[in-house]
Amino acid sequence: MVKGFTAAGIAAGIKKSGAKDLGLIVSAVPAAVAGVFTKNQIKAAPVVLDMERVKAGICRAVIANSGNANCCTGDQGMQNAIKMAKLTADAIGAPEDMALVSSTGVIGQALPVEKIAAAVPSLIHALSPDGFLSFAESIMTTDTKPKMITRTVDVAGKSFSVVAVAKGAGMIRPDMATMLSYVCTDVEADAQTLKQILNRSVNLSYNRITIDGDTSTNDTVLLLANGESGVSINDAGVKDQFQKVLDEMLIALAKMVVQDGEGVTKLVEINVKGAASDADADKMADTVAHSNLVKTAFFGEDANWGRIIGALGRSGAPIRPDAVDISFNDVLLVKNGLWCGSDAEAEATKVLKLPEFEVNIDVHIGSGRASYWTCDFSIDYVKINADYRS
Amino acid sequence: MVKGFTAAGIAAGIKKSGAKDLGLIVSAVPAAVAGVFTKNQIKAAPVVLDMERVKAGICRAVIANSGNANCCTGDQGMQNAIKMAKLTADAIGAPEDMALVSSTGVIGQALPVEKIAAAVPSLIHALSPDGFLSFAESIMTTDTKPKMITRTVDVAGKSFSVVAVAKGAGMIRPDMATMLSYVCTDVEADAQTLKQILNRSVNLSYNRITIDGDTSTNDTVLLLANGESGVSINDAGVKDQFQKVLDEMLIALAKMVVQDGEGVTKLVEINVKGAASDADADKMADTVAHSNLVKTAFFGEDANWGRIIGALGRSGAPIRPDAVDISFNDVLLVKNGLWCGSDAEAEATKVLKLPEFEVNIDVHIGSGRASYWTCDFSIDYVKINADYRS
Repeated sequence: MVKGFTAAGIAAGIKKSGAKDLGLIVSAVPAAVAGVFTKNQIKAAPVVLDMERVKAGICRAVIANSGNANCCTGDQGMQNAIKMAKLTADAIGAPEDMALVSSTGVIGQALPVEKIAAAVPSLIHALSPDGFLSFAESIMTTDTKPKMITRTVDVAGKSFSVVAVAKGAGMIRPDMATMLSYVCTDVEADAQTLKQILNRSVNLSYNRITIDGDTSTNDTVLLLANGESGVSINDAGVKDQFQKVLDEMLIALAKMVVQDGEGVTKLVEINVKGAASDADADKMADTVAHSNLVKTAFFGEDANWGRIIGALGRSGAPIRPDAVDISFNDVLLVKNGLWCGSDAEAEATKVLKLPEFEVNIDVHIGSGRASYWTCDFSIDYVKINADYRS
Repeated sequence: MVKGFTAAGIAAGIKKSGAKDLGLIVSAVPAAVAGVFTKNQIKAAPVVLDMERVKAGICRAVIANSGNANCCTGDQGMQNAIKMAKLTADAIGAPEDMALVSSTGVIGQALPVEKIAAAVPSLIHALSPDGFLSFAESIMTTDTKPKMITRTVDVAGKSFSVVAVAKGAGMIRPDMATMLSYVCTDVEADAQTLKQILNRSVNLSYNRITIDGDTSTNDTVLLLANGESGVSINDAGVKDQFQKVLDEMLIALAKMVVQDGEGVTKLVEINVKGAASDADADKMADTVAHSNLVKTAFFGEDANWGRIIGALGRSGAPIRPDAVDISFNDVLLVKNGLWCGSDAEAEATKVLKLPEFEVNIDVHIGSGRASYWTCDFSIDYVKINADYRS
């Protein structure tokens, strides 16, 4: 429970399945807000609207639907996004521009805004301090489970709380490869500080996961802070503590997103150290994490280090072929660029059979480090993504 | 038949299957040579050796094996590559550095150079002007067919000939994602001119195909010209004619390589026009061609334009969302960024059922153009690449 926030999720008939597809988060008082949005130049209407509205740094509510992305929908799409926000603002008695809006689902089809209009009264009625799990359910597309984390932090005799929810990215049914995440806290903070904190956390979490390497038109992360706890971000130690908690929460959610990707059977952490710089380590971890050949080998439980070293070699970061070590968890399989033999391979293959493992790479050039989270690339991924849009 | 060139391919016992795995091309006289090699920083021993040797611009022979990549094999790997070349040079009575060498197959295992040594006499014995098809067979890994094109060009009462062979890239069994290609001509040319011509052709062909986006440690393209036709590259019109023929041959081979990728059911040409520059068109075509979501939709015969527009939007090249047209062959499905409706979609879906089709994209910004060739991403791709290295 985060003071001053309520949430809800209901079925509004947007999804054919009849599952929950409309969610709302409301702050009792105006909350400071910061956002991170997709870098794709093709942005859905709600993303364009939110990017403009978060500039004011303040909001009261976020309404989100699944089942339709409201993307590539032209002028009508923008009018529908504005209408969806206005319906929300009117219902809670707030100025129109204090409501933000997100959509996820099929691209290029008109948003059934009349269904949303009809459902808003029920949505308002369902609002509850305990409604975040329902909200998390309402933004699911092909996620198999809702993703939510709550934390309460004690600080100098007071406490503040944070709730964070997310839905999956990539490796999802046609047109639904969107990552959405919302974080609400009762800390008191200004929008500019929130933005700095959010950027850092997103860079350590959502920007370091990959499922299929595609970037959605709708990706959105919002952080709202309404100050109702009485704890200020400017109080001694609070900013660092909040940053640490947010980092942990978003990394945990990011891993949940990868693990729940369609067709995923394995969550794999790629750790690179010894690069010339952190940026170089990033490039290497990113290239290994995205390689289809590496990811299909994970699915096949094959400790195929030749593909990993091949990916390292094409990352663009400098590498010395005779100074690369690769371990699967603690099992060293490649030392100085050479295979450690069939005993080591047999041990490494055991690691590959685990549902979660690490690939630890040391390139022995400098002290640059980076971690990414990726998954295997399975037959089910292809099946799901080859299906006709339903 | 290309004057002065002979070739052969035989089984030397490197592949467990007993299939052909050792090939040789010999020029009766020293030939000018140019090469293009993998940009991967992890380069197999034969690539490192060839890159050094082609600097002299002259050679007599190329020996190539499949079944073992001789990559990540340390000092012993380089000694084996040198030995493989020396065995060849000795057998044809040429200086040691006049022989080039290629390998393709499993990474990280010692090259069985003693099997190669034992097979060289039979290989020499098998040399024939008609031996290029056998050579093309001997460099196959999981290619289902050998890839060879020959052309004879009449020019001012004389004629010259060109033979080009290739083996597949990517989407191939574990560790064997290598593209090798060799071109022999009896035109007389200097190595520097050959290099310019080869670079242009490769940039129009092998650099514009993608199967799974991974880059091998062993990719090699060699162009040999021995002058035995009596036609010189400096004769009037010959250079342009040779360039044109080579462009056509390598584009044809590149398309064969994509079409024969493991698990491939569709060859798709991605054409982008109207970009701000050719370089921007390149970025867009490249991003669409590599998108796993686009490629799985091709496999599912789904005219999923939302994924294509999503890929265009993340390519890094400027795009106006309301000025994108997308056609499948001649069927316009997206106009000004908006869907053309269910009738157009039904027609587009028919195109997707073809084994070969075009995706034609116009972004209406400038006059930049680019074409790429890609394939669908199938269940068989994952099955094949998940298999344990055999």
